[in-house]
Formats: sequence, structure tokens, C-alpha cells
Amino acid sequence: MNVYIIGIGLIGGSMSLDIQEKYPEAIIYGIDANETHLEEALQGKLIHKKAILQDVQFADVVIVTIPVHVSVGVITEVLNTINDDTLVIDAGSTKEKICESIATHPKRRNFLASHPIAGTEFSGPKAAVKGLFIGKTIIICEVEKTAFTLQEKALEIFKNLGMRIRYMDSKSHDKHIAYVSHLSHISSFMLGKTVIEKEKNERDIFDLAGSGFASTVRLAKSSPAMWTPIFEQNKANVIETLEEYIANLQEFKNLMLQDNFEGIYQEMENTNHIKKILKGIK
Amino acid sequence: MNVYIIGIGLIGGSMSLDIQEKYPEAIIYGIDANETHLEEALQGKLIHKKAILQDVQFADVVIVTIPVHVSVGVITEVLNTINDDTLVIDAGSTKEKICESIATHPKRRNFLASHPIAGTEFSGPKAAVKGLFIGKTIIICEVEKTAFTLQEKALEIFKNLGMRIRYMDSKSHDKHIAYVSHLSHISSFMLGKTVIEKEKNERDIFDLAGSGFASTVRLAKSSPAMWTPIFEQNKANVIETLEEYIANLQEFKNLMLQDNFEGIYQEMENTNHIKKILKGIK
Repeated sequence: MNVYIIGIGLIGGSMSLDIQEKYPEAIIYGIDANETHLEEALQGKLIHKKAILQDVQFADVVIVTIPVHVSVGVITEVLNTINDDTLVIDAGSTKEKICESIATHPKRRNFLASHPIAGTEFSGPKAAVKGLFIGKTIIICEVEKTAFTLQEKALEIFKNLGMRIRYMDSKSHDKHIAYVSHLSHISSFMLGKTVIEKEKNERDIFDLAGSGFASTVRLAKSSPAMWTPIFEQNKANVIETLEEYIANLQEFKNLMLQDNFEGIYQEMENTNHIKKILKGIK
Repeated sequence: MNVYIIGIGLIGGSMSLDIQEKYPEAIIYGIDANETHLEEALQGKLIHKKAILQDVQFADVVIVTIPVHVSVGVITEVLNTINDDTLVIDAGSTKEKICESIATHPKRRNFLASHPIAGTEFSGPKAAVKGLFIGKTIIICEVEKTAFTLQEKALEIFKNLGMRIRYMDSKSHDKHIAYVSHLSHISSFMLGKTVIEKEKNERDIFDLAGSGFASTVRLAKSSPAMWTPIFEQNKANVIETLEEYIANLQEFKNLMLQDNFEGIYQEMENTNHIKKILKGIK
């Protein structure tokens, strides 16, 4: 099995590690615009060989794990180049724009739109880890538009990587993921900003902050290069979540201004059952 | 050494476990308004014996770890009851109101106002863990108002528990801690609320959410009974942080509305160096 991974970072690199373990016969080719990353990936045994985009004509599987604004063009190029039996998968955090961009492509049936809900706040090939996908959900969008045999091939890979599979249309995916992922990143970045602006002396933050702060601002370490295009592609949904979040914060502030601390208690009590929801999330 | 712990929950219980290890001769007495918690603490060997408030007349050390609005009255009662050599410590997340409340007490010099920056999102005696304070900061306020020999006694205990000691005035403490702790809790609770309101089907949240969401809403599991009085006592500072946080979120939204994604990139890039700050936080 010839696997071509376009974008050897946290996601592409981690997929490669698991594919190598589950498919020892697979040959993994890496394609990356960043020559340093590509060399690191080769040295770190994330890939067996370097390749260029034109080489995907020899691929059995192509996995596209690059920022979503680049994906849109690259997936089209890949579909232009592959043969009839090649499976092309992406892993982007937005699905609507990507699905739209290849909707009428003659090789649409070779593409499976997917989003593994897995990752860390780190990026690049050195961030790749084994077993990243075990027990994680992968959302597959518009599955009916992918050729049946290629669906099967993809599902086998996802299951071998340990993922739970869920199906959604791309519009719903982008709407829901804005709430449970994109908003978390903004809340974290802006929390970090608010504290850094105030605490000009970083030593003070370090001395005063505990694990709670570290947990809520962890995502503020994420890559702006990856996240800016996600917010751009999911603009309308993200703005909606931001408006609701701001309104909730304002309501909390108003309760405080009114000395309505029974209301404050109730706000927290009502959200407390998030314990139950979080229990199953790794 | 007779140690009386008032409020055997996460903090009081964890302190007890470490004190038992470092001071094997210490006898730990537990006082708690919640009889179930007190019984759990006894069964779980967090305390050796149950006691009542009047018993602190026999104490060498009294540790007060109860919600901050109750602390204010209880610390006064404790000071009314103890003998001249007793050390009284609190661990509340607000310091100004507590220090004010005993400012003119004849036994002011027996009290050391402190705040260990340690904890988890859980509460109650079952949440107590060994080694919770290792490598954590403890903020001591108005140290000059505590008798010198009792300062020494307290510092020895804190050092034996593995804590790094920092000094601040109580006003500054409350101002800074609003940024690095209290705001994190509100951002987390309101994020949880925003998502729960939207995703009425909890199964959907569970399927779509990843570790990033779990991390940002972890603090929304915290106890409303503990946090409501903290927000009440630190009202002015907390409102200020909330206003700044909301303004930053609104600015982010405006950049998105203006399609200024270079600005969005910059916002994230500017906050990214939080990596460096977080490195040292456990």
C-alpha cells in the first residue's frame, strides 16, 4: 500500500506512525511545503520517502493534513492527478468549503471528507505521537458521495487506528464544531490575552497561576497558521457562537453588578452537570 | 502537635494527608458543618478524631479551609477561643475581606493569611490527595502582622509540604488572582453554558468534543458553594477582569466581521508566547 501524506505535522505524522504499525507493508511518502519539516519527518521515521505532489499518481491512499485554506486547492490538484482507485482523505476542522470545492469534480467519488477530533496544542512533525486517535471520534461528512469500495477502505483504516466513527452532513458539522471546538480556542486565546495585558510581569503570572489557569489557556498555544483559516472558513458559525458566549458573560457580569449572588450560584449549578458529559472525553 | 482542620474537603483533607506524613506525631482533629463529610474524613483517615469549634482552645495549629464568606466569622471565633501560642492559617482564594475582618482583633498576631495556589475541580473529603502542594505557590498576605515565631512555624509547615512561598499585600493578591484564577472559572462556566444551551442532545457534545473542549471547560465542574462567595468578596476586581475579557472577545469578533484575518492571526500570534509562561505551571 502506497500512502502519501500531504502535510507531515501533528495529525499527518501521528496518522503515519499508527499506519506504519497497523500496516507494516505500507510505504509512507511525505509531501510538505516546509522542507525542514519534511527532513525532520524523514529523520524521525514519520515517513519512508520524500515525494512531490505529482507523485500521488502512484498512490493507493492520499491523506491531506494541511491548513484548511490550502486544502481546498490541493485536494482538487490531487483529484486531478490520482488514478481511479485512489482514496483521498482530508482531516480538516471545517468541512463545508472543502466539500463545496470538489462537489462537481469528476473524481468526487475518490474523496472522503473527514475530521478526526484529536490533537494537542502543539504542531509540526515533532508533535506527532503514537496512538493519538485511540478512542477518539472521527466525523465523516457526505459519505454517500464516496465510492463504496473506497468508503470501506477508509473505515478499515480508521477502525485500525482505534477511532469511533460518526456521520454528519458538512453544514451541521461546521455548525456544531464551532461550539465544541472553535469557540474553545477563541475563549482560550482571549483569556490569555486579557491576563498578559494586565500582568506585564510574566514572572507574576507564573507565580500566581495554578493548574486551573493552565488548563483554560492551554489552547492559546495553538498554531495561528492553522487556526486563522479555520475561523475564516467557518466565519458565520463562529461569530454566532461568539455572540452567545459574550451574551452569557455579560449576563454573569450583570448578575454580579446587581449583587444577585443567588443567580450566580444558579448559573454555575446549571452548568455543573457538564461533569457527566465530560466523563467520556479523553 | 495538635492540629485542628476546620473544613475537611479537598484542601483541608489534602493538607492533613501531607501533615500526617511529615509530622507523624501530629494529632489531626477535624471540624466540619457537614456530618457526612466528617465521617468520611474519619473513615478515610484524613483525620484522627472529630472535634467541635470550642476545642480549638487545645490547638497548636488551626487550619481554616471553608468557603470564604464563612471564614470571615469563623476565624474571629477561633481567635476568640485559642491560646496565646496557637497559629491560625486560612487558605481562602480572597484575602482582603478576611484580613479586614480581624484587623483589630487582639489575637491578630496569631493569624497568618495565606492562599495555596493548588487544587482540582473536585471538592469534598474524597477529593483529597497526597502531595497536592508540591511545587505549588502559597501566597502569604500581610506577613508583618503575624507574630514572628508563628510566621516561622507556618513557613516550616509550608516548606515541608513542598510549597514555594511568595508575599503580597491582600489588596494586590485579590486584584491579581482575579485575573489568573477567578476569570478562568467564569470563562469556563460560561463556555460550558453556551455549549450546553446549543447542544441540547448531550450525546452530540460527547461525540464531537475533544480534549481541547474538555480542558477549557474543566473548571465548570467546580463547586458553586465555594465559588459564589469568592466572586462576591472579590466583586470589583472580578467585574473589571470580565469587562476586559468581554472587550477582547468583542474585538476578536469585530476583526472577523471586517474579514480582517491578518488581524486575527496577529491576535493569536501575540498571545502564543503564553507557552513560555505556562511551561513552569504544573
